[in-house]
Amino acid sequence: VSVVAVSLPNQERLAWWVNHLAELLPDRRVLAANDVTDADAVDYAVVWMPPTGMIAGWPNVKAVISIGAGIDHITCDKEFPSGVPIIKTIGPDMTQRMREYIALHVLRFHRELPDLERSQKNSTWEQVFTPTAPNRNIGILGMGHFGKACALTLRDLGFNVSGWSRSGTAVAGIETYNSDGLEAFLAQTEILVCLLPLTDETSGILNAKLFEKLPAGAKVINVGRGQHLVEQDLLAALESGQISSAVLDVFTTEPLPKDHVFWTHEKITVTPHVASLIDPISGGKIIADNIGEFDRASIS
Amino acid sequence: VSVVAVSLPNQERLAWWVNHLAELLPDRRVLAANDVTDADAVDYAVVWMPPTGMIAGWPNVKAVISIGAGIDHITCDKEFPSGVPIIKTIGPDMTQRMREYIALHVLRFHRELPDLERSQKNSTWEQVFTPTAPNRNIGILGMGHFGKACALTLRDLGFNVSGWSRSGTAVAGIETYNSDGLEAFLAQTEILVCLLPLTDETSGILNAKLFEKLPAGAKVINVGRGQHLVEQDLLAALESGQISSAVLDVFTTEPLPKDHVFWTHEKITVTPHVASLIDPISGGKIIADNIGEFDRASIS
Repeated sequence: VSVVAVSLPNQERLAWWVNHLAELLPDRRVLAANDVTDADAVDYAVVWMPPTGMIAGWPNVKAVISIGAGIDHITCDKEFPSGVPIIKTIGPDMTQRMREYIALHVLRFHRELPDLERSQKNSTWEQVFTPTAPNRNIGILGMGHFGKACALTLRDLGFNVSGWSRSGTAVAGIETYNSDGLEAFLAQTEILVCLLPLTDETSGILNAKLFEKLPAGAKVINVGRGQHLVEQDLLAALESGQISSAVLDVFTTEPLPKDHVFWTHEKITVTPHVASLIDPISGGKIIADNIGEFDRASIS
Repeated sequence: VSVVAVSLPNQERLAWWVNHLAELLPDRRVLAANDVTDADAVDYAVVWMPPTGMIAGWPNVKAVISIGAGIDHITCDKEFPSGVPIIKTIGPDMTQRMREYIALHVLRFHRELPDLERSQKNSTWEQVFTPTAPNRNIGILGMGHFGKACALTLRDLGFNVSGWSRSGTAVAGIETYNSDGLEAFLAQTEILVCLLPLTDETSGILNAKLFEKLPAGAKVINVGRGQHLVEQDLLAALESGQISSAVLDVFTTEPLPKDHVFWTHEKITVTPHVASLIDPISGGKIIADNIGEFDRASIS
């Protein structure tokens, strides 16, 4: 019988996934990776941040399924066996959640909600006039599946949206820039949203050099990966005022360590990697479907 | 020469309006109400919360222009001369601002941002799974110009939106309820947005009886008028948990008095009547146009 091995660092979350996938895949044995006794029997691995060498220990694995839209948490495994396909998980719920998160945090910055909240703390009635959305420039770094969806959502809310990607692929109603246009893209971006995949080229892209090219007082939202951001450069830019605030959903080490300076920084909002959470109910369905489809494609 | 008298309680704001309107209406004399020496010469009054009897003191006034979408701040003047037309000010910027505010605060509640912010205060990594917008029911009380625009914006963000109005006028993609449907409307509303005009019928509508008909733990956003809300009933409902949080942008007394309990209530977000601020730049243009149009209509 086909064995589907599941691995996630969070044990509670792991049990939740194993149970849901077992219901969705009644013809297979769904096991937590630690409960696998016959390594040869594993033909699918469903993982988030699998331990180094784990996949290599399952010689007959046909495909690895990422519990998420990114695959960097799998490919960073130095022992990952070459030639094994990796299947991303992207579904309408994840796109919907990302759209919600980006709309929320762009609007929160646009309407200066942190300032209003500070006024409330001081019981101070202080009206702030903000420009309307058509007079606010939002820049999306990374125009993949999520980038495009978020750009269109922000455009529909009335914002003036630009998108940057290596290829500069055109999207209706969005001004797009390619590799050569990065400076021009940054020069007009008041609120920058990072939705890039993590690759050798994008690692550390949110650094001092990039921040300097934004207008003074720009705001940054990072929902890509922690490794996109050079932490010390952000702290320096917040100190100088070049960046006025940041929202961070992803971190080099997750969970973000208890003593990390980001937690208590008054200009940083920390959210615990929730922008586009994938749950075993809707996400499990997509994964089960993808396994079935991969199987059928392999047979035919 | 035609005199346009301007009255606002905030003196700084008053000067701003007088200056902008003077530029926009070069053929008229634009004066702060206190600077009017010839009461007979005033033919237009541009006002926010005019003092009782002020309008009655200008016998030749042709129309009163509200600096805002509501007119209750004018009609509450017991000495307001009958038969004088009142012109509301509604323009694309005000509608845009209201859409932004409602989208922001609905998303903030939907994504449990206040909980995430509390977690950050405790340096605690605590992921919260929230339903996607199509599984969240938003109810809009009042389907006038702003109510409709906000309902459509929320629908486009993916929410399940219902609207309530006396007549129950149909709006594409929105489930609408009329007078008879108030209970059914409330029973399914997780986040309630009040966008009603203030009238004898709607005054005090946000009261204990209404709160009880919402699902337990519902959230309330009031951008109508302070008088829509029975303050003690909200405090009691927050205490019992029947209402879990509220955002209030309008108050019976504005600015909200320094010692008011709302300022420091941990389940209440106070914003200083900024949802749909009208500024003399775009708002002044609309008012100047409306005065010109009224003049032409009176002549012909």
